[in-house]
Amino acid sequence: MIKKNYLLAPGPTPVPSRVLLKGADDTIHHRTPQFIEIAKKAFEGLKYLFQTQNEVFILASSGTGAMEAAVANLLNPGDKAIVVVAGKFGERWKEICSNFNVNVIEIPVEWGDYIEPEELKNILIEHKDAKAVFTTHSETSTGTVMNLKEIAAVVKDTEAVLVTDAVSSLLAQELRTDEWGVDVVISGSQKGVMLPPGLAFITLSEKAWKLVETSNSPKYYFNLKAYKKSYPDFPYTPAVNLIYQLAEATEMIKEEGIENVWERHRILAEAVRNGINALGLELLSKKPGNVCTAVKVPEGVDGGKFTKLLRDKYGVTLAGGQGHLKGKIFRIAHLGYMSKFDMIVALSAVEMGLNELGYKVSLGKGVMAAEEVFLKEGV
Amino acid sequence: MIKKNYLLAPGPTPVPSRVLLKGADDTIHHRTPQFIEIAKKAFEGLKYLFQTQNEVFILASSGTGAMEAAVANLLNPGDKAIVVVAGKFGERWKEICSNFNVNVIEIPVEWGDYIEPEELKNILIEHKDAKAVFTTHSETSTGTVMNLKEIAAVVKDTEAVLVTDAVSSLLAQELRTDEWGVDVVISGSQKGVMLPPGLAFITLSEKAWKLVETSNSPKYYFNLKAYKKSYPDFPYTPAVNLIYQLAEATEMIKEEGIENVWERHRILAEAVRNGINALGLELLSKKPGNVCTAVKVPEGVDGGKFTKLLRDKYGVTLAGGQGHLKGKIFRIAHLGYMSKFDMIVALSAVEMGLNELGYKVSLGKGVMAAEEVFLKEGV
Repeated sequence: MIKKNYLLAPGPTPVPSRVLLKGADDTIHHRTPQFIEIAKKAFEGLKYLFQTQNEVFILASSGTGAMEAAVANLLNPGDKAIVVVAGKFGERWKEICSNFNVNVIEIPVEWGDYIEPEELKNILIEHKDAKAVFTTHSETSTGTVMNLKEIAAVVKDTEAVLVTDAVSSLLAQELRTDEWGVDVVISGSQKGVMLPPGLAFITLSEKAWKLVETSNSPKYYFNLKAYKKSYPDFPYTPAVNLIYQLAEATEMIKEEGIENVWERHRILAEAVRNGINALGLELLSKKPGNVCTAVKVPEGVDGGKFTKLLRDKYGVTLAGGQGHLKGKIFRIAHLGYMSKFDMIVALSAVEMGLNELGYKVSLGKGVMAAEEVFLKEGV
Repeated sequence: MIKKNYLLAPGPTPVPSRVLLKGADDTIHHRTPQFIEIAKKAFEGLKYLFQTQNEVFILASSGTGAMEAAVANLLNPGDKAIVVVAGKFGERWKEICSNFNVNVIEIPVEWGDYIEPEELKNILIEHKDAKAVFTTHSETSTGTVMNLKEIAAVVKDTEAVLVTDAVSSLLAQELRTDEWGVDVVISGSQKGVMLPPGLAFITLSEKAWKLVETSNSPKYYFNLKAYKKSYPDFPYTPAVNLIYQLAEATEMIKEEGIENVWERHRILAEAVRNGINALGLELLSKKPGNVCTAVKVPEGVDGGKFTKLLRDKYGVTLAGGQGHLKGKIFRIAHLGYMSKFDMIVALSAVEMGLNELGYKVSLGKGVMAAEEVFLKEGV
C-alpha cells in the first residue's frame, strides 16, 4: 500500500500546501522594493508570533544558529551564565557557552523533570554576577514545558538577562515575550511556524541590547548589530523564498488568532495523553507540554523497531528518544499544522504498531479516549 | 480549532503536493518540443492507466465533456443505443443521448443494484440493431460497481460497441481496456488520477473508430478525428500546466504499480465497510465497489445536517446522496491519493458526528474494525 506521510515528529512539521506553493513563486532579488514589502510583512508577522514590540530578526540558519547568536552577542569570554540542563537542548546551550568560553553554572535537572522558579531564585542569589540565564521553554527531548512566566518574574529583578530557546514551543505554548519580560527569545521555521527548515528567529529586549553593546565574542554572520542596522533589509542575502513562505504562514496564524493556536495545541496534547493513558502506557514527563508527548516504550517492545515499523510501513513518523532515552521512549508531536485527526492517526498507528510487535493493546481504545476529549471540548 | 481539510468525497480528490507543486512550473507554449516531450510522457502514462495500446486523448473539459464526445462521435441522430441507468451517471448518458437525438433503449436498474450480464445479453438479442451500449463502471451515486469484464464479453459478440464511464472507477477498480475488449473508456483528472479538475480522457477501439468514421452528429471542440490527427500535439490549446501534473501523476502511479493501486483501493473499501458494519450502520449498495461506500443515514439523523457538521466543523468532506437519495445516504470515498489513515479519519468523524447529533454509536468501534482489516492485510 502507498505510504502517505504523517509527519508527527517535533520538527520539521507538516507545511500547509498554501505555504508550500508560496515557495514556488519566482525568486526575485532581495534588494528590491517588492521583496522588502514582503519582508516587512514577515517581520510584522513575527512580532505578533513572538508577542513583542521589538524587532525579531530572521537568520538563514537552523535554530541552533540563533542559539549561537544569543551566546555570541550577549556574552564575553569568562562571563558567568546559568544554564538549566533538563534534556538535550539544555545540553546544547551548555555546549555553545563552553565553546565561547563562558563560565557555565549548570543546573542539572533529571530528564523529564523541570525547575521550580524558587530554585532558580536561590541560585541567582548565589550567583549575583551571572550575566544570563539560558533556558529551554519546551524541552523537546522529554516533552516537558517549564513555567516560563514565573521564571521570567524571578530573573527580571536581577542583573541577568533571561534567554529562552523557544524553537519548538513558539505557538504551541503561550509565550508573551514583552508582557512576561523574557529578554531573548529564539525560534525556528520548521516547528510551530509551519515552514520548511532554513530560517531562525531571535528577538532581544533593551536590557539584552545593552549586553550586546559590550560583547566582544567572535562573530560575523551572526552579528546581530549588523541585522539591526540593516532592518528591515538584511546584511547578507536572505533566504528569499522561505521569506515568502514566512509572510504567508504568519498571515495564516493571524487569521486563526494566536490564542486559538495555543488552545488548539493544548487540546491536542490533552487528547493524546488521554489516549496514551487509556492504552495503559506511561508518560515520561512530570510536566508534559503541548509540543510533544513522550511515552515510555512498554516492557518487551523494541523501541527502535517500533518507530521504524511505524515510519517505514505505516508512513507515520513519530520521534524516538534522544541521548540516554534512545529506544526507551517515543514521542508524538502535536506541533504546528496539526489538528485533531492527526492525533487520531498517531494513536491508531501506536495501537496497530504495538499489536503488530506482539504487545497487545485494545484496538481503538486510545482513539476512543482522544475522541472523548475532542467531543468534550466541542471541537 | 483549525480545520484541516480531508477530502473524502468521490472527486475532486486530494492532490499530492508533488503534483500540486508541478503545476506551479512556468507555463510554456504548447507548440514547443519541450511541451511535446512532456505531453508524450502524459500520453504514454495514460495508456498504462487505461491498459490499452490505443491512443488516449486528453480534452480540456470535465468528464462530462468526454461523455459527450463519445456520444457525438459514435452515433448519428436516430441511431439506437442501449443505456444502463442505475444511478445519476447512467441518467447523464441518457440525457446526452437524448440531446443528440439518439433512440435510447433504457435498462432501468434500481439505484444500488446492478445489471447481470445475462440480462444485457437478452436485451442485445432483442435489439440487434443497437449501435452502442452505454454503461457506468462505478455508479458513484450509489457506490456500486458493475461487472465490466463479463459485460464486455457479452457485447463483444454483437455489432454494438461498449462504452463505459470510468470517470470514478479508473484506478480504483481493475480495468483492462484491451484485454477485456471495452471499446470506449472515458475518465477525468480529479478522481483516481489525483489531479485537479480540468482534464478528461477518452480512448477508442478499432471497432469504435469505424463508427466514428460514419458519424455526422454535430461537434467541433469534441471532434475526436481532430484530436487523432494532431496527436501527440493538440488541435486546440491544451491545459498546459494540468498536463505537467498529469505526467507527474502517471509517473507516481507507475512507481506504485497499477495492480498495487487497485489492491490498495480494494483494501481501503473493505476496511471502511467493516468499520461501518461494526457501527451497526447499513450499506446502500448490493454490489459495493472500491470508489466509495454509500451508507444509509440511520433513523432519526438528519443526513444533510450530518454531512454539514462533518464538513463545517471537522473539515471532513464526505458526500451526501444525489437525486432521490439526498439526505438518505452519505458516501465515504476511498478514491485516488488515499491510504489507510484517511479511512481511519473518515470512520472517526462518522463516530463523533453521529454521537454529536445524538445518535449513539460506540466511539472507536468502527476504527477498530478497520484497523483489524489493515492488520489482517498486513499493510
